[in-house]
Amino acid sequence: MTQFTFDAPTVIRTKRDGGALSDAAIDWVIDAYTNGRVADEQMSALLMAIFLRGMNGAEIARWTAAMVGSGERMDFTDLRRDGKPLALVDKHSTGGVGDKITLPLVAVVAACGGAVPQAAGRGLGHTGGTLDKLEAIPGFSAELPKAQIRQQLCDVGAAIFAAGELAPADRKIYALRDITATVESLPLIASSVMSKKIAEGAVALVLDTKVGSGAFLKSEAESRELARTMVELGTQHGLVTRALLTDMNRPLGTTVGNSLEVAESLEVLAGGGPADVVELTLALAAEMLDAVHIDATDPAQTLRDGSAMDRFRALVAAQGGDLSQPLPIGAHSESITATHSGTMGDIDAMAVGLTVWRLGAGRSVPGERVQSGAGVRIHRRPGEPVAAGEQLFTLYTDTPERFNAAIAELDGGWSVGETAPPDRPLIIDRITP
Amino acid sequence: MTQFTFDAPTVIRTKRDGGALSDAAIDWVIDAYTNGRVADEQMSALLMAIFLRGMNGAEIARWTAAMVGSGERMDFTDLRRDGKPLALVDKHSTGGVGDKITLPLVAVVAACGGAVPQAAGRGLGHTGGTLDKLEAIPGFSAELPKAQIRQQLCDVGAAIFAAGELAPADRKIYALRDITATVESLPLIASSVMSKKIAEGAVALVLDTKVGSGAFLKSEAESRELARTMVELGTQHGLVTRALLTDMNRPLGTTVGNSLEVAESLEVLAGGGPADVVELTLALAAEMLDAVHIDATDPAQTLRDGSAMDRFRALVAAQGGDLSQPLPIGAHSESITATHSGTMGDIDAMAVGLTVWRLGAGRSVPGERVQSGAGVRIHRRPGEPVAAGEQLFTLYTDTPERFNAAIAELDGGWSVGETAPPDRPLIIDRITP
Repeated sequence: MTQFTFDAPTVIRTKRDGGALSDAAIDWVIDAYTNGRVADEQMSALLMAIFLRGMNGAEIARWTAAMVGSGERMDFTDLRRDGKPLALVDKHSTGGVGDKITLPLVAVVAACGGAVPQAAGRGLGHTGGTLDKLEAIPGFSAELPKAQIRQQLCDVGAAIFAAGELAPADRKIYALRDITATVESLPLIASSVMSKKIAEGAVALVLDTKVGSGAFLKSEAESRELARTMVELGTQHGLVTRALLTDMNRPLGTTVGNSLEVAESLEVLAGGGPADVVELTLALAAEMLDAVHIDATDPAQTLRDGSAMDRFRALVAAQGGDLSQPLPIGAHSESITATHSGTMGDIDAMAVGLTVWRLGAGRSVPGERVQSGAGVRIHRRPGEPVAAGEQLFTLYTDTPERFNAAIAELDGGWSVGETAPPDRPLIIDRITP
Repeated sequence: MTQFTFDAPTVIRTKRDGGALSDAAIDWVIDAYTNGRVADEQMSALLMAIFLRGMNGAEIARWTAAMVGSGERMDFTDLRRDGKPLALVDKHSTGGVGDKITLPLVAVVAACGGAVPQAAGRGLGHTGGTLDKLEAIPGFSAELPKAQIRQQLCDVGAAIFAAGELAPADRKIYALRDITATVESLPLIASSVMSKKIAEGAVALVLDTKVGSGAFLKSEAESRELARTMVELGTQHGLVTRALLTDMNRPLGTTVGNSLEVAESLEVLAGGGPADVVELTLALAAEMLDAVHIDATDPAQTLRDGSAMDRFRALVAAQGGDLSQPLPIGAHSESITATHSGTMGDIDAMAVGLTVWRLGAGRSVPGERVQSGAGVRIHRRPGEPVAAGEQLFTLYTDTPERFNAAIAELDGGWSVGETAPPDRPLIIDRITP
């Protein structure tokens, strides 16, 4: 009997030439990569081949399962609050520009009685990561021992932690994708999201799948397919899973950048903030609570009565953050002003995302430190009146040599015209198994 | 003025999406990769994107020039022998199975009055590298100081050295391609070959472009296009360049593997050896001598009169090699014998190449040590009569656990039938500027 041994070039070659990877090949390459027997260079080439050749449904399912199996799958179903099992539910966004929804959302759901175990990530490409945002708060740490996660789920109703130990294969692959231009791939996005979410210990999951220029997948058809794929993967692994399709042609809210988005989240938690951020927060909260059978007639009440703010402060404090200290802001700023009066047209989410990345809020090599205080404040939103000479955008960075490239990215991503752009519904559709 | 700054993900994305890379982008990425500002993972993803999307003629020319420019371009035109400039000419093969031609060829050309400055490489994929072969000779070193290369060109008429200092960008890229399944790409092959050959200091170059199953590019049309591209690149850089298209459906000679091929080369230099190895050696020698206007009526005479053998021994001795010691041979061997009588059919070059690679003669991770003594001896060549029970192939390795996978690769790559396979002309065509 000949025992067949895999090797990385053969696996890469199969996908490069348009073939489907066998279950055994997928299991082998994920395990070998996790354990350092397949090199980063080899996985990068394989990722580009997957990007350009795709994967079929069976390949995506096996790739996801192999990534879950590369580490521990957490289980919090033994935890009790007031004698009852916790309502373990999480949300994941496929990544948008100005998407700080996780921050108020987790607090609202906790205030309504849910428990959110959230394995969060760092920035990928032109979008910021939840951890990058929270780490703009002085002292905040996402490196939580498991005992602390369990304690916070019971006491605070939420824990936001680095996915480090979970799906270690995904952690390594995720870091590669960011620097190798292999982010915007349906199989790679679906398997990455779902491997972490299946491993993190939630029993229900709501996916916020973005559609539009600022989303990783540009067409609505691709985003729908991504949502369907992820709902199916979650269901296969026993999670109650559903998805909302939401608009990401425009940035969410009026701020993009790590500390700026924390500040805007605090406004929402204080009962104010931009209407779109509030709307999406409450829509996702309603889905999450429904998925774990919590009957909350008015989640918005938690924003008005301060109970969500209390949960957010408790969460931050439990993880070492100090909200009494000022949030960092870029030491240098430049403003873009209107040359003529009119009405603000559409603002392109991708242009703003790349601008903020150029300002230093994102990474171009792995492990690079991001600037907490880099970002863009949007003074006039689509449809708002503009007077000649007034500020439209303010850009912040600690490294002013970045302004030129950042302003060049923003150029062409907005305009002031005669009429308001058409309204865009924020929530486009709902996908269930 | 906005100064545009390149970054690796943007360059990768351009090629990934099917665009052409600008001159500036190519100059930037080659320089940044050479200097460590673009990571191996990023170059691997770019190479896979180039593999799947291709490059146009202008991109290949710029990529090659940038790789030449990443290091020094050597110049030996000041050297004199008997008061006359040296006839600096080299040959390069695109890589075949059992292709040990360089060893006798360099000696024949030197014996006829040429001077061969050869920057040689290590094994790539299923083909062995010239350096891997020569390093099977105890003591042989290819790490030559430049003064020694100059001295050998004058005294011996040849120097075979590691391309290390030349086209350092290519050296790094070459190592990646071997492990990332990005070898078989026309733009990457052409630019890799020509950057080293342009930098090594020859003024004329003959290319042996392989056609067939054992070649990196499988179709004759692709191999022709590769030959034309390389001839054009050489001409653009001032080299007298021409190419032969030669058959690589069958292995060359009767041995494949590092030390086995050295032994076979010594047989050729002693006036014997397989007819195909002799034929190709003499055809390439005639091209090389013609390209530098050396009028050698009968290069074969140097094999009969021992003058080529003398040159080879002088070359090996100058580089520290000791031919009085036995060549290494794998400590373990297995033979494949004929189950029935008949005539040997075609032997597939790729199957034999992969067999030898599985036996340990090639690399699967960068920097891996290759086994000098691993290889295959072919006892019956296509068209030769076979008697039931006699040995057809002998496989050698130091690591007998490799036999199963190696034998599996050979399976289906040969057959014993009723009739002889059709003759294949060894030299298919000649390509000039």
